[in-house]
Amino acid sequence: MDQQAIEQDVTERVLASFENTKDPRLKEIMRSLTTHLHAFIRDVRLTEAEWDRAIAFLTGCGHITDDKRQEFVLLSDVLGASMLTIAVNNEAYGDATEATVFGPFFVEEAPEIQYGGDISGGMSGQPCWVEGTVTDTEGNPVANARVDVWEADDDGFYDVQYEGQEIAGRAWLRTDADGRYGFWALTPTPYPIPHDGPVGNMLQATGRSPVRCAHLHFMVDAPGLRRLVTHIFVEGDPQLEIGDSVFGVKDSLIKKFEQQNASTPTPDGRVLDRDWSRTTFDIVLAPENA
Amino acid sequence: MDQQAIEQDVTERVLASFENTKDPRLKEIMRSLTTHLHAFIRDVRLTEAEWDRAIAFLTGCGHITDDKRQEFVLLSDVLGASMLTIAVNNEAYGDATEATVFGPFFVEEAPEIQYGGDISGGMSGQPCWVEGTVTDTEGNPVANARVDVWEADDDGFYDVQYEGQEIAGRAWLRTDADGRYGFWALTPTPYPIPHDGPVGNMLQATGRSPVRCAHLHFMVDAPGLRRLVTHIFVEGDPQLEIGDSVFGVKDSLIKKFEQQNASTPTPDGRVLDRDWSRTTFDIVLAPENA
Ligand SMILES: [Fe+2]
Ligand SMILES: [Fe+2]
Repeated sequence: MDQQAIEQDVTERVLASFENTKDPRLKEIMRSLTTHLHAFIRDVRLTEAEWDRAIAFLTGCGHITDDKRQEFVLLSDVLGASMLTIAVNNEAYGDATEATVFGPFFVEEAPEIQYGGDISGGMSGQPCWVEGTVTDTEGNPVANARVDVWEADDDGFYDVQYEGQEIAGRAWLRTDADGRYGFWALTPTPYPIPHDGPVGNMLQATGRSPVRCAHLHFMVDAPGLRRLVTHIFVEGDPQLEIGDSVFGVKDSLIKKFEQQNASTPTPDGRVLDRDWSRTTFDIVLAPENA
Repeated sequence: MDQQAIEQDVTERVLASFENTKDPRLKEIMRSLTTHLHAFIRDVRLTEAEWDRAIAFLTGCGHITDDKRQEFVLLSDVLGASMLTIAVNNEAYGDATEATVFGPFFVEEAPEIQYGGDISGGMSGQPCWVEGTVTDTEGNPVANARVDVWEADDDGFYDVQYEGQEIAGRAWLRTDADGRYGFWALTPTPYPIPHDGPVGNMLQATGRSPVRCAHLHFMVDAPGLRRLVTHIFVEGDPQLEIGDSVFGVKDSLIKKFEQQNASTPTPDGRVLDRDWSRTTFDIVLAPENA
């Protein structure tokens, strides 16, 4: 056999080995994985030393992973596999708001707030007024939609990364009869993903930043409409030029955060003792089975 | 953007993120990996639940891996990635003997034996006389080539899997002036790769056997010639029909092992107290830089 036939023969044997898989979906996945994995090895003419390095890399990812640290999720994130999976599972529908990565920092136990409430829970950062509407793709307001929001403090840490057990920087509220919501949060700031492990080493070796563009997470649920998991990003954030380490940015999700002087009265008629910002995010939900 | 453009945009961003990689080879590998990984996710329309399952699978592989157990190597093996890497790095050259997987059971400390010596070291199994020649691709005998051989006992265990520290089932010898070698070993028998972990679960879910076809490992070195790492397999082994769990079999490596009665004198003029077998393996080495 010539070289090409020898290599093709290996691939054919592996594909054939999955022939008896009972679950047709598992069979499809294993065969496609084999095809693409083999194409990669052939394309780069992977050396045995590089194969050793790959095994050691995956082993390192496994050994740093525990209940609190998930290096394989980070790996998927920085290779854009997470974001692509999100894209595949949230197909574009009309002008529905785009989805982005869920991330590892959502927790179920966030408190409920009312319109105008504050999600910060005492976290440090600049106050930020966030408001908008939830509508369907025909422009009808969606009343009583559940809007979950969460974010990091201005040191780049989520509450779950704190020593203690306090809940801060997260809450949920419902839209009013006109589909409107509004709350106080913190102006988002950039933060690095954990980069002291194998994935961090890979980012360094490839000249990439571990930093995520500043963002505020949203998850929006309403009956009969597709759940939306997304963020909004901050127009002018210098990290937008450098790039988001997990590829979560969509142009449509970059919002103007208008800086306000302390002397400017707030939308809810208060005067703060410091500068604040405000932004608007109008959310459009796709039909559930779109 | 339409759906296809959204998905393509994710891939383009990830490819662009590797633009500043200093090492051109690393850049090539990361870009190719991204391209093929993304093509896989798009092709199968990977669901978020399947993505979760993949993360859990890799985490399980990481957590079972330690100094003695290497689940990522097993994973590479059963996906044919190891065998394809071997194929890529041992390009076909004339009628040079084909390479196959190295496996995890080679050790440096094997004893030297002379022509006609015994590698079994007291391991249980049927005696087997193995002989042959080492030549180059022009048919010239290769004198003084180093021939390393190793194998499992007839329970399917290598010495390194024993409780104790003894060395058995492995040795090395040199070819004589005519390029000939000959030694006593054990008739190879099939054995399963470790299958009590995530990789074993995957084999079971896909209806695959964890068993390797019976084989005897060879590694052959001679100055100016390409190192050969290979096995020979046993003609008639029923596992050849079922399939080798790591895809190591090449038709050219399947050899007749002739069963001999105890009463038949051995090639070195002895009479054994039990049946034995014999086989011939003539080895052809490619030029070093072929
Ligand atoms: Fe985040
Ligand atoms: Fe073996």
